[in-house]
Amino acid sequence: MNKDRLKEFEAMFNPQSIAVVGASSGRKMGGLAVRHLQLAGYKGKIFPVNPTEREILGLKAYPSVRDIPDPVGYTIIMVPAAAVLRVIDDCAAKGVKVVQLFTAGFSETGEAEPTRLEREMVARAHRAGIRLIGPNCAGISVPAKLIPLETTGVIGQPGDIAILAQSGGHTETLADIGLSRGIRFSKLISFGNACDLNAIDFLEYLKEDPETRIIALYLEGITDGRRLYQLLAEISPIKPVVLLKGGRTETGKEMAMSHTSSLAGSAAVWTAAMKQAGAIEVSTLEEMADTLMALQELPPITGNRIAIVSQLGGGAGGAGVLAADVCTSLGLELPPFTGEIKDKLKSIVNAPGSILRNPLDMSLMGRQAALLRKVLGVLAGLSDYDLIMLNERPTFLLALVSEAELQAINDVLVDFQHSNKKPLVVVSPPGGVHEKERVEVERRLTQAGIPIYPSFERAAKALANIIWYWGFKDKYQT
Amino acid sequence: MNKDRLKEFEAMFNPQSIAVVGASSGRKMGGLAVRHLQLAGYKGKIFPVNPTEREILGLKAYPSVRDIPDPVGYTIIMVPAAAVLRVIDDCAAKGVKVVQLFTAGFSETGEAEPTRLEREMVARAHRAGIRLIGPNCAGISVPAKLIPLETTGVIGQPGDIAILAQSGGHTETLADIGLSRGIRFSKLISFGNACDLNAIDFLEYLKEDPETRIIALYLEGITDGRRLYQLLAEISPIKPVVLLKGGRTETGKEMAMSHTSSLAGSAAVWTAAMKQAGAIEVSTLEEMADTLMALQELPPITGNRIAIVSQLGGGAGGAGVLAADVCTSLGLELPPFTGEIKDKLKSIVNAPGSILRNPLDMSLMGRQAALLRKVLGVLAGLSDYDLIMLNERPTFLLALVSEAELQAINDVLVDFQHSNKKPLVVVSPPGGVHEKERVEVERRLTQAGIPIYPSFERAAKALANIIWYWGFKDKYQT
Repeated sequence: MNKDRLKEFEAMFNPQSIAVVGASSGRKMGGLAVRHLQLAGYKGKIFPVNPTEREILGLKAYPSVRDIPDPVGYTIIMVPAAAVLRVIDDCAAKGVKVVQLFTAGFSETGEAEPTRLEREMVARAHRAGIRLIGPNCAGISVPAKLIPLETTGVIGQPGDIAILAQSGGHTETLADIGLSRGIRFSKLISFGNACDLNAIDFLEYLKEDPETRIIALYLEGITDGRRLYQLLAEISPIKPVVLLKGGRTETGKEMAMSHTSSLAGSAAVWTAAMKQAGAIEVSTLEEMADTLMALQELPPITGNRIAIVSQLGGGAGGAGVLAADVCTSLGLELPPFTGEIKDKLKSIVNAPGSILRNPLDMSLMGRQAALLRKVLGVLAGLSDYDLIMLNERPTFLLALVSEAELQAINDVLVDFQHSNKKPLVVVSPPGGVHEKERVEVERRLTQAGIPIYPSFERAAKALANIIWYWGFKDKYQT
Repeated sequence: MNKDRLKEFEAMFNPQSIAVVGASSGRKMGGLAVRHLQLAGYKGKIFPVNPTEREILGLKAYPSVRDIPDPVGYTIIMVPAAAVLRVIDDCAAKGVKVVQLFTAGFSETGEAEPTRLEREMVARAHRAGIRLIGPNCAGISVPAKLIPLETTGVIGQPGDIAILAQSGGHTETLADIGLSRGIRFSKLISFGNACDLNAIDFLEYLKEDPETRIIALYLEGITDGRRLYQLLAEISPIKPVVLLKGGRTETGKEMAMSHTSSLAGSAAVWTAAMKQAGAIEVSTLEEMADTLMALQELPPITGNRIAIVSQLGGGAGGAGVLAADVCTSLGLELPPFTGEIKDKLKSIVNAPGSILRNPLDMSLMGRQAALLRKVLGVLAGLSDYDLIMLNERPTFLLALVSEAELQAINDVLVDFQHSNKKPLVVVSPPGGVHEKERVEVERRLTQAGIPIYPSFERAAKALANIIWYWGFKDKYQT
């Protein structure tokens, strides 16, 4: 990517100032966008643009973009579609380089006039050297630059995952999930109808972006499939790409047409091609978040041999049976504990009801932090296992132990994580009598960098996804 | 089922008194079982049995069951396996009719001596006319009789779902999930190794039990497959049975052998047979809970035509695309809104960015309670749809509306539910910035009898399950 193009993107992701056209003092979107920038603590200048108001949320308002005296780095348009051409002309006159359009009512309507309007807008922008993001999108958020999502105002934690999504709602949803699950972002980009800048453009940038290590991509359709394939095949060996395709079914396809004016294409051909390119295809936003978390927190794991410590404090037998079913049916292996391993475990765990298999059922001994520490110590030393999974359900533990003891058990997990001896994943299903305490446990473990999942099914799927990817990368490199 | 056998079960599910053998004042299981009965407010007499203590948790303690002066309705044994035979003899001398064994360390160990001990225990019990539940189980909970789960102390809400599970942990887990999701229970029965009373016996009872309308069954293995098939085929046309089989994979099978001494058999043959018998087979505890909630709250729905109102307040387009993909790939149909319906919707929803398809994207108009009320009114009147699904994510709504307005939106849903015009299901994903408010919304809607799911995937699976069942029942009756 040449310097000029990189500079274009710099104006989007590190703007020195932002104009909001259609800003107002009320609770309309334009007002919210300004307010959200203020609340997030954005350090650049904010220029509200409104033809009738002179001050908005304590900031001087300008009748048009032309009237702003300072240079304008980035412009967000939130006025109705009918007013957009005039604003583009204003931006051209001002010398604005990048415009993002929240405004909807263009080609996604499927109607002739709005589609013509979109084309005219693109033509005028290109004549003036303006690049367009959208229309019909929720724009860009850059947590490290304190630029929040303009609609919800959510600002994610800074990190190295880029979200690139044709749906603004999905960037907002992933940011929201990320905050509670510790998934951290470099950029969140929604590009809606992609009338100008599209998935290919942004992917070319993210491939180079030093702040992005992992890419999440939501697409509803693509005009240049060959280039997308080629680009993903170039990126995958360098950075993992987690891909979710909307419109895989007929009904979804029709909805995608109305949503972002996208032709969705055949699902089977698509999936085969994406696999060949090395992209990790997922089928829901939840699976996308789960997989991103595994990529973010776990080292490159190419082996699929899992040791499971089943439900601490009780109910570990049945939970272990279902965990084994779910994990093995998703392609993970649970090699049995045999010979010497079994002897070592037996010297620690010997309660009636305990089961020295894999999954390991510590029975009532699972409530003793000191024993858990020893068990993890044994498992950490085994080269026959690539990863440890453990599940806890605070309702069970808190029936038997105090909150301090619950904390001691989780101290063991945090210490183990910090020891870096073996990757650890925790399953902790939400809901139940002690949900408050569970959320606190999840918060602690998440902060320590332990990926947490609400079920074995979701954990196993995420792990299978990343193990597949690291295997792909290994094969590619040899 | 004859009167004598019914009487046997009466002693389990409505005991006038309960003896806990192995009770103590400490935090051991025996003490917890007594404490949990007290906390739950159990109305019958509780007799702690301990050879060395004279008073336990304010109750007079007895050296043995023989020494209890009153009649003993039900006995829970929590002493080590080695002491069990003597306790059984005591129970025989006292004339106890039903004994439940929490104690583990019998045939599930796979070892000769414990297996022999289990057989000897059964022989002695039978000679004395005692029926055994377990060993290696968490016993019985009857919410309406204020009998909690002995281990966690959780007492579910009374209702008409019976849980019958070879795993005590699963009864505990389902009770815990049930409390937060409004799933209500008639009985929760865990029967562990099933050395005497087994799944068949309990199913025969639940088939007749007037307090049970829906049955959830977790099995790890079965000795008499033919009888089970026959019985499920008899029950299914009367009461839906939701079935989860542990040990469907080789690893799960081995774990099941160690957990409850069960031989698990071939998965494919099993699944085909269960389907023919009319049982709803599920593959995780989450899917079981989801399906139970749909059966509990929704009327018999045999049609699969769904109208979707996509994400209120924002992000409805992308959410609608994925909802359509997920629902149709799980066998639900989303007939498009056409002609007159579309016109009616257009007269209510006409914001830019809104999509008058199914899923319906109300765009920013989805934050207006009055408009939502009108939209639901239109959908309720359409005979082309069997059910309405709607999703809300409070993070989106609360970026745009006040808490009072959020409440007004949910008032609309509650009112709609009470109008009984069309079944309604809500999807409300957990996590995110406004989780506290979301939990409150979930609580309100749950109380109103609206089934809530954490994702479209889980909602669609549960719906597909019950639609299949009601279709099976219809076919059976014609």
